Amino acid sequence: MKFEASDPGFEARVRSSFARQKANTLMGASLLKVAPGEVEVLMPYREHLTQQHGFLHGGFVTALLDIACGFAALTLMPKGAGVLAVEFKINFLAPSEGESFVARGRVLKPGRTITVSAGDFYCLRGSEEKHAATMLATMMVVRDRPGVVD
Amino acid sequence: MKFEASDPGFEARVRSSFARQKANTLMGASLLKVAPGEVEVLMPYREHLTQQHGFLHGGFVTALLDIACGFAALTLMPKGAGVLAVEFKINFLAPSEGESFVARGRVLKPGRTITVSAGDFYCLRGSEEKHAATMLATMMVVRDRPGVVD
Amino acid sequence: MKFEASDPGFEARVRSSFARQKANTLMGASLLKVAPGEVEVLMPYREHLTQQHGFLHGGFVTALLDIACGFAALTLMPKGAGVLAVEFKINFLAPSEGESFVARGRVLKPGRTITVSAGDFYCLRGSEEKHAATMLATMMVVRDRPGVVD
Amino acid sequence: MKFEASDPGFEARVRSSFARQKANTLMGASLLKVAPGEVEVLMPYREHLTQQHGFLHGGFVTALLDIACGFAALTLMPKGAGVLAVEFKINFLAPSEGESFVARGRVLKPGRTITVSAGDFYCLRGSEEKHAATMLATMMVVRDRPGVVD
Repeated sequence: MKFEASDPGFEARVRSSFARQKANTLMGASLLKVAPGEVEVLMPYREHLTQQHGFLHGGFVTALLDIACGFAALTLMPKGAGVLAVEFKINFLAPSEGESFVARGRVLKPGRTITVSAGDFYCLRGSEEKHAATMLATMMVVRDRPGVVD
Repeated sequence: MKFEASDPGFEARVRSSFARQKANTLMGASLLKVAPGEVEVLMPYREHLTQQHGFLHGGFVTALLDIACGFAALTLMPKGAGVLAVEFKINFLAPSEGESFVARGRVLKPGRTITVSAGDFYCLRGSEEKHAATMLATMMVVRDRPGVVD
Repeated sequence: MKFEASDPGFEARVRSSFARQKANTLMGASLLKVAPGEVEVLMPYREHLTQQHGFLHGGFVTALLDIACGFAALTLMPKGAGVLAVEFKINFLAPSEGESFVARGRVLKPGRTITVSAGDFYCLRGSEEKHAATMLATMMVVRDRPGVVD
Repeated sequence: MKFEASDPGFEARVRSSFARQKANTLMGASLLKVAPGEVEVLMPYREHLTQQHGFLHGGFVTALLDIACGFAALTLMPKGAGVLAVEFKINFLAPSEGESFVARGRVLKPGRTITVSAGDFYCLRGSEEKHAATMLATMMVVRDRPGVVD
């Protein structure tokens, strides 16, 4: 599905908002692709991100997908708006192990108030890519709310 | 709902597994209550856990609830088993702001293979408690899988 | 949680909207309780509602919960608004068998645009009640949309 | 994604199980495509399937997607097994209006115990097809349970 961004400055807006998320620094996440309706986020493996069996903690799998899905929605929102997650659901398809991880978010249906996004999570090792999780998310356009502008 | 743990050592098992989750150190999470079918996790506010609007990042809200729901399920699992999240869904009810945060997980339905848990997330400030998110989660008992023992 | 309905005619409005759902006749569903933030729906067992193993079809379990959660949200919405489901998630806790079935929906968090509801599904046989499913749902207030008024 | 069915008789098994679902007769649903990891279900519009605004009731949108996702999972399950839905989540993308409706289910990740499926729901009118809902579902393989064989 191809979308057009109503705000030509969408990419700068997404990158600046991402840079203000302190959680991204903590997780070591960085933005790869930012296109209308699509965002890709990268996170290298680090031991302090793991759970008790040595896999990447599901909370961080979710956090990265949330970021990808939320910013994918933001690319199509009007200037001056903010994005908030209403809810999401994630299915884990395989344990997350790898040298680095990529979350790819894409808009399924943009809306004036509600935007539905989907995201997929991949574990990378050398040239291999394993599909480890999938998310379905509901994002909300926030207008005229002080402090919530992206 | 009252449950009985089949393994009398359930609390030590949960606390030891929690201690092996490196992600908990990163987030500053600690275990409060561990009872049959119930687990409570605490996390103090820290600036590096925030998103772009200054609220606690939704990924960490989710991570804390995932931990509470997963360990609540583990309290009722047999010795030697491991717990893995199959999937979960979270609804955000209010922005997460506060001095600290508590996630309370409880088992809705324990099962031989699948256990369904629910969790609620609260923001604490002084003596006030705000309900900020709710989760519905599907957890799986893992047996005989090397490396996945809690 | 106790809520107050802003529209004193909320019950008549819910009952009239329910009566216009032709699907309710097909399923044999009827409204029991209608209170601020709470709705209860009843459906007797009928063989044509079953799936291949003889249990009540999961689609009808879901339909009944959707109705209970949506109308629970509607009780708190202003006059002239309509309610639409944005999304929901359901966990099946046990096969649905019984003489009749009750879905109980309640509002977790009402909002100007988005209302979050939860619902539980019970199978009744004599005086026994079995908890068979649970739902977490996101409902939306629709204003000024021709044809969508409840 | 291409899958292979371990049971060469998978199609007959799915069609026979579908025929035993009495709910399908009530809804007027019929099976279109049955391939390894993929199932398509058709339902014509009928007035008694509608909700209060005249759209197809969300419960039936869900029921049709549940059927498509569950049988898609069944195509890859071993002979003698049964399929049960553990949980699913659905997002409604647009009101369901049309002459007929198609639900397409596909397996994302087959497993020994748990299979994850996704489904999409389309409204058909003439040659137009509108994407109206999307589902993410967790299905379970049931073995050795009397009465639960597909």
